[in-house]
Amino acid sequence: MSRVRIVDVAETAGVSRATVTNALKGTGRMTGRTREHVLSVAAALGYPLVGDSLRHAPSRTLALGVTTLGAESWNFAALPYYAQVIAGALASAHARGYGLTVLPAAPADRRWHALVADGVLLLDPHEDDPVERLVRAADLPLVFVGRPARPEPCDVWVDNDHDRVLRSVLDLLRSRGARRIALIAGPGTDYYARRNDEVYRAWCAERGSAPLVVPLDHPELGEALFADPGERVDAVYGIYESAGRLALDAALRQGLRVPDDVLVACMSEDLAYAETNPPVTTVSLSPRLLGGLAVEALVQLLESGSTGAVPQLPTHVTLRASTQGR
Amino acid sequence: MSRVRIVDVAETAGVSRATVTNALKGTGRMTGRTREHVLSVAAALGYPLVGDSLRHAPSRTLALGVTTLGAESWNFAALPYYAQVIAGALASAHARGYGLTVLPAAPADRRWHALVADGVLLLDPHEDDPVERLVRAADLPLVFVGRPARPEPCDVWVDNDHDRVLRSVLDLLRSRGARRIALIAGPGTDYYARRNDEVYRAWCAERGSAPLVVPLDHPELGEALFADPGERVDAVYGIYESAGRLALDAALRQGLRVPDDVLVACMSEDLAYAETNPPVTTVSLSPRLLGGLAVEALVQLLESGSTGAVPQLPTHVTLRASTQGR
Repeated sequence: MSRVRIVDVAETAGVSRATVTNALKGTGRMTGRTREHVLSVAAALGYPLVGDSLRHAPSRTLALGVTTLGAESWNFAALPYYAQVIAGALASAHARGYGLTVLPAAPADRRWHALVADGVLLLDPHEDDPVERLVRAADLPLVFVGRPARPEPCDVWVDNDHDRVLRSVLDLLRSRGARRIALIAGPGTDYYARRNDEVYRAWCAERGSAPLVVPLDHPELGEALFADPGERVDAVYGIYESAGRLALDAALRQGLRVPDDVLVACMSEDLAYAETNPPVTTVSLSPRLLGGLAVEALVQLLESGSTGAVPQLPTHVTLRASTQGR
Repeated sequence: MSRVRIVDVAETAGVSRATVTNALKGTGRMTGRTREHVLSVAAALGYPLVGDSLRHAPSRTLALGVTTLGAESWNFAALPYYAQVIAGALASAHARGYGLTVLPAAPADRRWHALVADGVLLLDPHEDDPVERLVRAADLPLVFVGRPARPEPCDVWVDNDHDRVLRSVLDLLRSRGARRIALIAGPGTDYYARRNDEVYRAWCAERGSAPLVVPLDHPELGEALFADPGERVDAVYGIYESAGRLALDAALRQGLRVPDDVLVACMSEDLAYAETNPPVTTVSLSPRLLGGLAVEALVQLLESGSTGAVPQLPTHVTLRASTQGR
């Protein structure tokens, strides 16, 4: 067979030669569907597509990223929570025929300028999030995993009901005998960090209990948690995955027994908490579902311009020995 | 501050204006390191990088894909084995500052022509693999996860020692009393499928035992496994993750008990095999490590042009009730 020409693609695709040229170059006005159709026909006929011609075509790729905290990068994909968000997003993207590019959590650098993607999933955006600013400026379709710090009118996000989750955990610890519960939180300004702090303080105020919030990276976590003046802390809840291990360790160093002296629980998807000493009660936020629903919403945005209602996400508490009642 | 100009970037980066222009356009001759340096300086100064200028720059992105079997797509990322290969690749890519694009297993289509990536990880390539042909033709750095069917002189791959793994499993089943072991294999022409078939037949020949290979998608798996003329099959090993469940089901339908009448084991990373009735003995191929090492090898190829020796990968057998000895 002789070499495939533009005219062959045009005839097979049922469009003009100009449309084929424009589709290949990413120029001209046509719907994304027409462009896709022409490119598929060209690929099927064996028209050479390597090189520039496709750079402007829909990439059928979604990008997933998170802002780094400060100047440092962190390997978020290695944490069980984020690993499951990614796994859920990946399965849904593939089921819809999209690739997924998972970016490293480097500071908002030129990578985001050079991004080749039809749309973006942004995890846990912070206040004045630089990646969020870039994506908004590029006018790329965007779905947040975790409510944005300052939502704009048409923003789309998937999230858990963190008010309900936190209150149910605090109530649980109280029902198991806790009189003063400390919160291990974080330095972040994302909605998850801020909202948990607010709801925790409100819950304490309602019960006349003195709040104590200790950041995850506190250099003297044991002192900060258990040597606080006032009533001794007898329960700890951590909103990040490593908090359970840190709390167990801090209690041990202070000569306190878990659960006899202190109850411990944390948000985590890490199955290893079944094997700690004692095993730690964990709260799952259904991250796999979160990632999958975020992709569904983004694909709807891309393909129909709007998205349906995102359902409430289930959460699940796995009770273990660390919160055994007294 | 006034608008940043090419000359500002040139001065700050310590290169000529022509080099800046070439770096931005992806033209000219310079090392990848120089291009990266110029682009980073441009980004840091706020030189507008949106649009075309970066399309030819190193994307700092790796692509991961698998060929679809036939015309159909399959959601490989949802299988525990592949999910772990991806998770390992992702953590290593991010640790090295690369993004990872995981492509859906669509037939080799124009997506691979339009790929924006510095290098490719190709999983389990088949004979005459169309994606492999495309990537080779594009001369993109390539690392295989799973030995290619027909390796070329400088090919790089990571893989397990499948000969040793299969022989140890067959020996194990034999030591637990099996006299005739059937293999559930697949229709694939990838090295893993072909090599397991060859080694299995050799092992049977050495012991004067009649081989029986049944494909995973056999419509009458129970009949095919247990109604074969000759000595009755009293053990089944499956080289794919679903084979354990299929074998349990097939045995049950034939009125056979596991492990009393038939021993069952399979390759799988699926923890759910701890909960089947009975729990099934599984062989793990360390897919997380496989994905991580493949990325390490690819990054070495990209950054230094060659790759060191890839270590032998560990495998692990989890013994469960399905292979309890008689």
